[in-house]
Amino acid sequence: MRLDHVGIAVKDAGEAAGTFRRLFGLPLDLERTVPDQGVKIVKLASGESSCEFLEPLGPGTPVGRFLAKGGGPLHHVCFAVPDIAKALEEMRGKGVRLIDEAPHIGAAGLPIAFLHPDSCGGVLVEFVEKP
Amino acid sequence: MRLDHVGIAVKDAGEAAGTFRRLFGLPLDLERTVPDQGVKIVKLASGESSCEFLEPLGPGTPVGRFLAKGGGPLHHVCFAVPDIAKALEEMRGKGVRLIDEAPHIGAAGLPIAFLHPDSCGGVLVEFVEKP
Repeated sequence: MRLDHVGIAVKDAGEAAGTFRRLFGLPLDLERTVPDQGVKIVKLASGESSCEFLEPLGPGTPVGRFLAKGGGPLHHVCFAVPDIAKALEEMRGKGVRLIDEAPHIGAAGLPIAFLHPDSCGGVLVEFVEKP
Repeated sequence: MRLDHVGIAVKDAGEAAGTFRRLFGLPLDLERTVPDQGVKIVKLASGESSCEFLEPLGPGTPVGRFLAKGGGPLHHVCFAVPDIAKALEEMRGKGVRLIDEAPHIGAAGLPIAFLHPDSCGGVLVEFVEKP
């Protein structure tokens, strides 16, 4: 399983991503608002991985609640898997608690799903399907 | 700049890394205690990046204080740079506050240095020299 990206929760994704671009020269990969997930996303490429800045669209969104609890800025890690349905089935078989029982389409148009931190050593883990 | 690894601060690095190995099949890359940095490190490979689990050797160590403040588990991101002295000089020129004014040797035997989160959008950033 390949590390696809690190999610970074911040109040202002444009500002934080701008800082990373200016300091580390990371190129812009994606900038999108995803109302049904309650986030604005700014993604910067970094080798075969990327840094994904997440800005909550409101205090009641998942990322908004995470920041309100004093969490962050590092939020989750995402692994790329070739077949997300198969990977989730495998996790179920290993007794992992899933946040998303079925994959849904993420900001980049690819199927994604989150696993619960309680099953993953406290870490919020995401899968993204990249065949 | 290439994302080299994500640092994950936990009470028990062996246990958390064991969970990641069991669930995600990530192979063991490195396991080492670094007394002068106050940590035990267990590193798992994941594509061209890796997941680095950090266990504090005591409550007064940097990682111990981070966990005591309720931080974590995600702790830092590390970028690989070809010439760390040059990269730190470039950061200084951009007004970045450095935690390590000069590189020192990390667990894997390579030069490393940390930048202060205040200058990096709240994120603790590490450089590792990989020519």
